[in-house]
Amino acid sequence: MGHHQLPETMKAAVMTEPGNIIIEEQDVPQPAEDEVLIQVMAVGVCGSDVHYFEHGRIGRFVVEKPIILGHECAGIVASVGSKVSRLKEGDRVAIEPGVTCGRCTACKEGRYNLCPDVQFLATPPVDGAFVQYMTIREDMVFPIPDHLSFEEAAMNEPFSVGIHAARRSKLAPGTTLAIMGMGPVGLMAVAAAKSFGVERIIVTDLEEVRLEAARRMGATHTINVRNEDAQAVIRELTNGVGVDTAWETAGNPKALQSALYSLRRGGKLAIVGLPAQDEIALNVPFIADNEVDIYGIFRYANTYPAGIKFLSSGQHDVMSLITDRYSLEETQQAMERALHNKSGSLKVMVYPNGK
Amino acid sequence: MGHHQLPETMKAAVMTEPGNIIIEEQDVPQPAEDEVLIQVMAVGVCGSDVHYFEHGRIGRFVVEKPIILGHECAGIVASVGSKVSRLKEGDRVAIEPGVTCGRCTACKEGRYNLCPDVQFLATPPVDGAFVQYMTIREDMVFPIPDHLSFEEAAMNEPFSVGIHAARRSKLAPGTTLAIMGMGPVGLMAVAAAKSFGVERIIVTDLEEVRLEAARRMGATHTINVRNEDAQAVIRELTNGVGVDTAWETAGNPKALQSALYSLRRGGKLAIVGLPAQDEIALNVPFIADNEVDIYGIFRYANTYPAGIKFLSSGQHDVMSLITDRYSLEETQQAMERALHNKSGSLKVMVYPNGK
Amino acid sequence: MGHHQLPETMKAAVMTEPGNIIIEEQDVPQPAEDEVLIQVMAVGVCGSDVHYFEHGRIGRFVVEKPIILGHECAGIVASVGSKVSRLKEGDRVAIEPGVTCGRCTACKEGRYNLCPDVQFLATPPVDGAFVQYMTIREDMVFPIPDHLSFEEAAMNEPFSVGIHAARRSKLAPGTTLAIMGMGPVGLMAVAAAKSFGVERIIVTDLEEVRLEAARRMGATHTINVRNEDAQAVIRELTNGVGVDTAWETAGNPKALQSALYSLRRGGKLAIVGLPAQDEIALNVPFIADNEVDIYGIFRYANTYPAGIKFLSSGQHDVMSLITDRYSLEETQQAMERALHNKSGSLKVMVYPNGK
Amino acid sequence: MGHHQLPETMKAAVMTEPGNIIIEEQDVPQPAEDEVLIQVMAVGVCGSDVHYFEHGRIGRFVVEKPIILGHECAGIVASVGSKVSRLKEGDRVAIEPGVTCGRCTACKEGRYNLCPDVQFLATPPVDGAFVQYMTIREDMVFPIPDHLSFEEAAMNEPFSVGIHAARRSKLAPGTTLAIMGMGPVGLMAVAAAKSFGVERIIVTDLEEVRLEAARRMGATHTINVRNEDAQAVIRELTNGVGVDTAWETAGNPKALQSALYSLRRGGKLAIVGLPAQDEIALNVPFIADNEVDIYGIFRYANTYPAGIKFLSSGQHDVMSLITDRYSLEETQQAMERALHNKSGSLKVMVYPNGK
Repeated sequence: MGHHQLPETMKAAVMTEPGNIIIEEQDVPQPAEDEVLIQVMAVGVCGSDVHYFEHGRIGRFVVEKPIILGHECAGIVASVGSKVSRLKEGDRVAIEPGVTCGRCTACKEGRYNLCPDVQFLATPPVDGAFVQYMTIREDMVFPIPDHLSFEEAAMNEPFSVGIHAARRSKLAPGTTLAIMGMGPVGLMAVAAAKSFGVERIIVTDLEEVRLEAARRMGATHTINVRNEDAQAVIRELTNGVGVDTAWETAGNPKALQSALYSLRRGGKLAIVGLPAQDEIALNVPFIADNEVDIYGIFRYANTYPAGIKFLSSGQHDVMSLITDRYSLEETQQAMERALHNKSGSLKVMVYPNGK
Repeated sequence: MGHHQLPETMKAAVMTEPGNIIIEEQDVPQPAEDEVLIQVMAVGVCGSDVHYFEHGRIGRFVVEKPIILGHECAGIVASVGSKVSRLKEGDRVAIEPGVTCGRCTACKEGRYNLCPDVQFLATPPVDGAFVQYMTIREDMVFPIPDHLSFEEAAMNEPFSVGIHAARRSKLAPGTTLAIMGMGPVGLMAVAAAKSFGVERIIVTDLEEVRLEAARRMGATHTINVRNEDAQAVIRELTNGVGVDTAWETAGNPKALQSALYSLRRGGKLAIVGLPAQDEIALNVPFIADNEVDIYGIFRYANTYPAGIKFLSSGQHDVMSLITDRYSLEETQQAMERALHNKSGSLKVMVYPNGK
Repeated sequence: MGHHQLPETMKAAVMTEPGNIIIEEQDVPQPAEDEVLIQVMAVGVCGSDVHYFEHGRIGRFVVEKPIILGHECAGIVASVGSKVSRLKEGDRVAIEPGVTCGRCTACKEGRYNLCPDVQFLATPPVDGAFVQYMTIREDMVFPIPDHLSFEEAAMNEPFSVGIHAARRSKLAPGTTLAIMGMGPVGLMAVAAAKSFGVERIIVTDLEEVRLEAARRMGATHTINVRNEDAQAVIRELTNGVGVDTAWETAGNPKALQSALYSLRRGGKLAIVGLPAQDEIALNVPFIADNEVDIYGIFRYANTYPAGIKFLSSGQHDVMSLITDRYSLEETQQAMERALHNKSGSLKVMVYPNGK
Repeated sequence: MGHHQLPETMKAAVMTEPGNIIIEEQDVPQPAEDEVLIQVMAVGVCGSDVHYFEHGRIGRFVVEKPIILGHECAGIVASVGSKVSRLKEGDRVAIEPGVTCGRCTACKEGRYNLCPDVQFLATPPVDGAFVQYMTIREDMVFPIPDHLSFEEAAMNEPFSVGIHAARRSKLAPGTTLAIMGMGPVGLMAVAAAKSFGVERIIVTDLEEVRLEAARRMGATHTINVRNEDAQAVIRELTNGVGVDTAWETAGNPKALQSALYSLRRGGKLAIVGLPAQDEIALNVPFIADNEVDIYGIFRYANTYPAGIKFLSSGQHDVMSLITDRYSLEETQQAMERALHNKSGSLKVMVYPNGK
């Protein structure tokens, strides 16, 4: 197999301070023996990227020096380290962005998303994927079939959150599900629910464009909470019983309360969205009396292979969620678009090696 | 086997209105074909009995006519219906107080504590156990060994709540557990945790007498929240990691918040106590970030046989929890004692057929 | 609502002795207060019916007096008992054939298929559904939507076995599944796997007609074990890894061994088919070394509502499985057809109130 | 902290060929940056060591060059690599002998015992613990409290198998358990069951000395299968119902069959012992009809911290299981003792740095 000639330098979109991204010329990195070099083809802009761009921090993670953002990514294997065996140059791949230690209790118990030593792309101080080339450990890289686009493969990251929520909340086919919030994570959560065989998916949002996208992803009933009382509509749709399972993906206190009140006795609630405020009033007697299960959701674990299968099945219209496309040089604009067009843009995508 | 001569009438302690219990002479009831008649020997006073006595209602359950309270009970089988096969006259038994329908979805799925048609003793309008004789369906009645006292058998009811919490929160041996609130349910929860092989049980309360009782039941560390910050002490005791599992049994908002903050990443929280107020502020980002599981606990299911085994093993000093003893004629005083001596009395017991 | 005029007598197909079914005129039964009267519209012939017809017994269940066979059934509610509230005359319904006690440990734990006191249609001495009218307890009767045919509703019974196997073996979307044996239970198991979101379903059988039917139901790869070595083909199809899960539905020792050997490390095996012989040689070191889970499957529990939802979704071509249709008067021929055309007939259906 | 002076060379017990162990002088190894050097204080002789000593192979693992055996070990941290943070010189520790890759699917899912790339001590070609000093990766090393002996810490390895079986077979307090085979693994399985709160433990063996040891470990009923029919006795002890759970630890076909037949409906069977022969006849209709769950058990995962807690609690008389003690120089005799005194010796222990 002929060896592809690699450039020595590349472009990288570096956030020098919150709100300011410049394009730098950097050396193309060399993969270590257990790493691969990825030519990055598509990177989705995530809400956390936008948050760092706007505020310079998320909770305890603070941007203290220039950082490269972007972690929802896919590309092509450009070269491989000496001990890499599962991958070869030219493989089209999706990239799981959290490199775990493999040795702590969380990792050993299969909950590696709780690894305290995880190196997660675009979480300070770890650089991310708004670059032309990046290295990453072999086991974080998953081949995709030819018919899956790089954009779809990049979308496996937010999709993974939905898959993880589905597993944690024991989602079963036949279940009645409500999903609060139809941002990108909520929309991909609809896709995850559909892949889990759920045929009744009720969703809520404030924006008609998002509810329309939700219907394309498989939502069977949409509620615009500007005009309708989610909890009342869901009760009515379920003959007063309530749904089996509800997921809150928006980080909205009111939506979380609605999600809780929408449940049947013995129902399950997954908290996917991260609220801006810490303290949210919840009806605790309702939780106890009805034996509600509540599951906090943080990222995901062991979802990439399943996600790629689901996306490859062709049942999800993920491409229709990509509303805005930018080159790497336009990363600043991409971030501003995502920041200022929250009601209109669904997923903003950056193409480091050309649209 | 000679047939024991049954009286035709008996005494019953009837609450005519909240705060007023009188002793009535009533006919001894006849068991239906699938029922047994129980000579009631011991009945514990539960917090819910006291609540009905004081307020005449708990949530949607309202005392609208005279009612007999008491549901933590044990006794002797006095006669059996024509189709009863598992029990015979003279059997010493514990009584599970919630007669379920067996036909609804909740019952068929094994979560019969969520049965909407359950007939629960001493929950309006169903009469309870402050009587000399009562009938109940055969399958709610569980034989106890000779060496188990009626008081211990009656305590299988609050014990069941602890066992159910242990199962719902997947309590495993080796787990580090914090239990907030050392009322009778909390104290029996310590016993349940001990039966589940948990060797590290940290407990909290305001009253020294309850913490002392907790140590007798197996608590390994007690925290008096008058003087100490539960969350801080628990963090320190666990080298900053937090406990694997926490149970709140007191219905206290502050205790619930402490329980949550005491957890390690991936920890589990069971909500056993029913707060007086509906809305309680919880740190939702903490729940999501740390992938906390929260389990609402409502009564119990399938706990009686296991509970009797655990109590029969002799490892629990349940008798030491019984601080006050009354005859049936003194039921009014028993209720008042339980109501007015909350800090001193642990379990108040009524003996309908003599102390 | 006007009361439909019911006849006083009806036709019943009674097996007087193995191999001989006669048509008797019987009184139309009266529903008890918690029962409904069903006008039976479609009854599938099950392998167990054929077994009683041929041998007069299955294991410990022996036909000792005339019996009415048939238990895969659906119909119309013809009248309701005085305490029935969930159903009304004219409802189109599927019938779950095992009336459970609701009071034993198995029932209370949600595993009512293990109830020792179950009254199961067409299991001696309980009469079955080859009649024009039958009574059954209200909670065994499940309304179906208008667009679902009675035949499809009757097929919810063998479908339930597949759903139960899916739940017991923790079938998840993305799983690779092998199903051994494409009789009616195997074919409906393919449908169940599809409803659970499984996209890779490899199946085996000896008969091409069954493999063809399996492809209609959603099988993605079929193996004819007359010509091919199932285990070798499955290993090859999975790059040497093996499948995540395998189900044996034929009761065939060789198929069971193939199913086991087809598994990956940590794989799961469900035993659905009942072999004619008791002792089957299994590779026990393989089970231990690979940490295989094996799940015995006996009937089903809590599957009817989910099954009706799945069948109503229109994703399963169940009607194509019905190869032979008979009136009640032709029940003898129906049984003989099922007995003698095992390789050609898939599901034989009897219509007690006209085809 | 003063640095302890380490020797440059040490003694190692090398098996040059099956049946022949010599003492070699070797260099004391240097820990890599993520490793620690262990001064080995106690090493138990396992059945697998004896099997390699006698036959030179176990299944696909073949001794092809000189190897050091021994993997049940404990010792003192003698020095630490540059990046080691959890441990320090002088720590008394138990050692988990299987160094996993942390990157494969099995590892990431928390089932690292199924890792295909595990480096397991004393499994060809990996050297084991019959040495004075050995290096191992930091995360395989677990501190023990002062009051726990090195022998007890070494016994955490076979104990781990019992803990893993308990978890895999969902052992719960109140469960009735039968354990077939009272070799060291069976005896430590009794201890594990006791730690899981099981109070009714029925055990079987051929040797009275082992049954006696079992009673010391917590068995409540012992069956000598030379004189008694295990299955019949267990049925009788459980009023004809059968046990909830059974474990086979001896690799004996007859014991495995007895274990299966001893189960109640819905019971669980763990296969812990590895039979010498591949094919064992099992009653498959019994498995299906009774919805038995069968769990293959291969080593263990995530058991060390729990095991150390249980052993430290003082409830297990593990020291009484150590029947034979040898110095490193006597390793040949230790192996022969274990090989030839199977009925009399329970655990043979080697002390590489002096008894």
